Amino acid sequence: VTVNVPQTLAQATRAGHDRDRLLSLVDDKMHAFLSGEQAHWLAVDHRSTVLIDAVTQLITAGGKRLRPAFCVSGYLAAGGDPSEDAIIPAAVALELLHACALIHDDVMDESALRRGTPTVHTRFAAEHGSEGWHGQSGRFGESAAILAGDLALVYADRLMAQAPPVAQAAWGELKSELIIGQWMDVLAAARFATDLELARWIAIVKSGRYTIHRPLVVGAIIAGRPELTPAFEAYGTAVGEAFQLRDDLLNVFGDENVTGKPGGLDLEQHKMTLLLTMAINRDERVGRLLPAARDDSSGLLRVLAESGVRDDVEKHIDALVERGCAAIADAPLSTEWHDELIIMAHKVAYRDK
Amino acid sequence: VTVNVPQTLAQATRAGHDRDRLLSLVDDKMHAFLSGEQAHWLAVDHRSTVLIDAVTQLITAGGKRLRPAFCVSGYLAAGGDPSEDAIIPAAVALELLHACALIHDDVMDESALRRGTPTVHTRFAAEHGSEGWHGQSGRFGESAAILAGDLALVYADRLMAQAPPVAQAAWGELKSELIIGQWMDVLAAARFATDLELARWIAIVKSGRYTIHRPLVVGAIIAGRPELTPAFEAYGTAVGEAFQLRDDLLNVFGDENVTGKPGGLDLEQHKMTLLLTMAINRDERVGRLLPAARDDSSGLLRVLAESGVRDDVEKHIDALVERGCAAIADAPLSTEWHDELIIMAHKVAYRDK
Repeated sequence: VTVNVPQTLAQATRAGHDRDRLLSLVDDKMHAFLSGEQAHWLAVDHRSTVLIDAVTQLITAGGKRLRPAFCVSGYLAAGGDPSEDAIIPAAVALELLHACALIHDDVMDESALRRGTPTVHTRFAAEHGSEGWHGQSGRFGESAAILAGDLALVYADRLMAQAPPVAQAAWGELKSELIIGQWMDVLAAARFATDLELARWIAIVKSGRYTIHRPLVVGAIIAGRPELTPAFEAYGTAVGEAFQLRDDLLNVFGDENVTGKPGGLDLEQHKMTLLLTMAINRDERVGRLLPAARDDSSGLLRVLAESGVRDDVEKHIDALVERGCAAIADAPLSTEWHDELIIMAHKVAYRDK
Repeated sequence: VTVNVPQTLAQATRAGHDRDRLLSLVDDKMHAFLSGEQAHWLAVDHRSTVLIDAVTQLITAGGKRLRPAFCVSGYLAAGGDPSEDAIIPAAVALELLHACALIHDDVMDESALRRGTPTVHTRFAAEHGSEGWHGQSGRFGESAAILAGDLALVYADRLMAQAPPVAQAAWGELKSELIIGQWMDVLAAARFATDLELARWIAIVKSGRYTIHRPLVVGAIIAGRPELTPAFEAYGTAVGEAFQLRDDLLNVFGDENVTGKPGGLDLEQHKMTLLLTMAINRDERVGRLLPAARDDSSGLLRVLAESGVRDDVEKHIDALVERGCAAIADAPLSTEWHDELIIMAHKVAYRDK
């Protein structure tokens, strides 16, 4: 790692403390909203609340709350008042939008596990089967998951409607980019597209913008500092790509006990990740072995290890973190928030789950 | 029909003219928004626009624009200025939300046709098959349709963000009710629930509130007359149930050349509609024949014809239209808009497609 992590831990701790306090209010607000909806619908019909339960369970099962963390950090780094709660609804909206993305993604990828527990569609399909209900269990599970994801998206917008009007445009961009990015991901996998530019673009849209750049900008706008947008965009784009590459590494080489997802997952699902695209462009055996990896990924995993792509990706991550940190070097931020954003870049780029 | 359709056609025409003019602006705005998105993403990558194309195609293929019509009518009936365009974004949002509901509904029901053309998931699955892409064509088609529906919902909220803040709460309620109503529909079909109260509740939530009551109320609120809410709720609930019953009749007994959907559709999909619930409660043979109707619905159609449920439903529709019209009899509306809403109730309750 070529970037120095600042040693000003006393200062960084104060910034981190403000963020953590607001993030705990974000979780409180999210649970209060979901509980309110549950109580409202329970009074109507007890069978109507199970989708709300599904969204609540997913959120309670874990998650890094990365998007709320960057949103709250953007707000505080831009000088937003830590004792005001103007940022809370937007941060909740980001996490609920993410719940929608995960629930629908798991249907599209036919994933069985998420955050160490069965995915929404898997759980509903199992209930359908054990109850002996009419129709196909798989179809029922997917219908429930489509609607649970829709509900999470509806709830995200209900929260965002409580945020200042000035933040709505960036929120609209963020959502559109997320969906279009997901689509390009699905299309690239189906077309077996090994185009490096496309793979980078998908990583930037899906992770850079959606996870880091736009949440930071929403925070800065709510703090009244939209002029921070270019610096946060450059930082978020680079650090987001590093985040996505780490995700790719963890999905292929990660330890299931730590990540909560089985290793080799992207290989089995034929996902055309940035990592795989880099590997195919480096070693032609990877492209030849990939189609068979759905059933058995061990051969491909061995070739990937031999190919040296792992070292390549680690070096690329280092360069991206360096570039991201450089992007905020001259931004008008307090020293403590400048340092805190550098620490956050390292945390997302070098995490182990 | 026991309700008198007003003969004051000259007056009704003026109200209808104002509505039709605003509705043509609604379609203009919707197409301008979608074209703007298309141009924006085309500049990024030509492959990224196909979901926008899918939403645009569905909207262009037809549709009654019922929700925009009730929204604009609520606005005008409440005295909203016909020369102002404050109501336009909300009306567009309602039609885009409906596009989301239809696209996701067609995945859940595995429907092949919508508005006389192949459904979104069917079209994408066919393209995947003919191009010989990787993975399963059915899964690819459904993934594309899940994302196209998500995008329509995202776009609906982007439009609604342009509407006056005062309308946001009703919009939030409307969306939540739609999703929970869809869920109860899926659950009732799976559980083979023949509970009349539940079937009526689903019809009221999915059609009464989502199609008529809430769009009218959003219009009235934007016109600055929230006090019309109770009258519009009573009208919309009754007329919406009539609308749903007509839908049920058309789906079971309708002429495919007129409706654009094959007859007997609800029987093949095991949908536990209000019509079927009424039929099961009237003639026990219906419940016995229903499970086999997925493959061949002719026997069940004969029993349904014999059962007299069609006449029952027609009488119930008459009573609902009468109740809906009575609900606005004393509301503080102009004569022409009182009459126009009565005409609209008859149009939705006695339509042939």
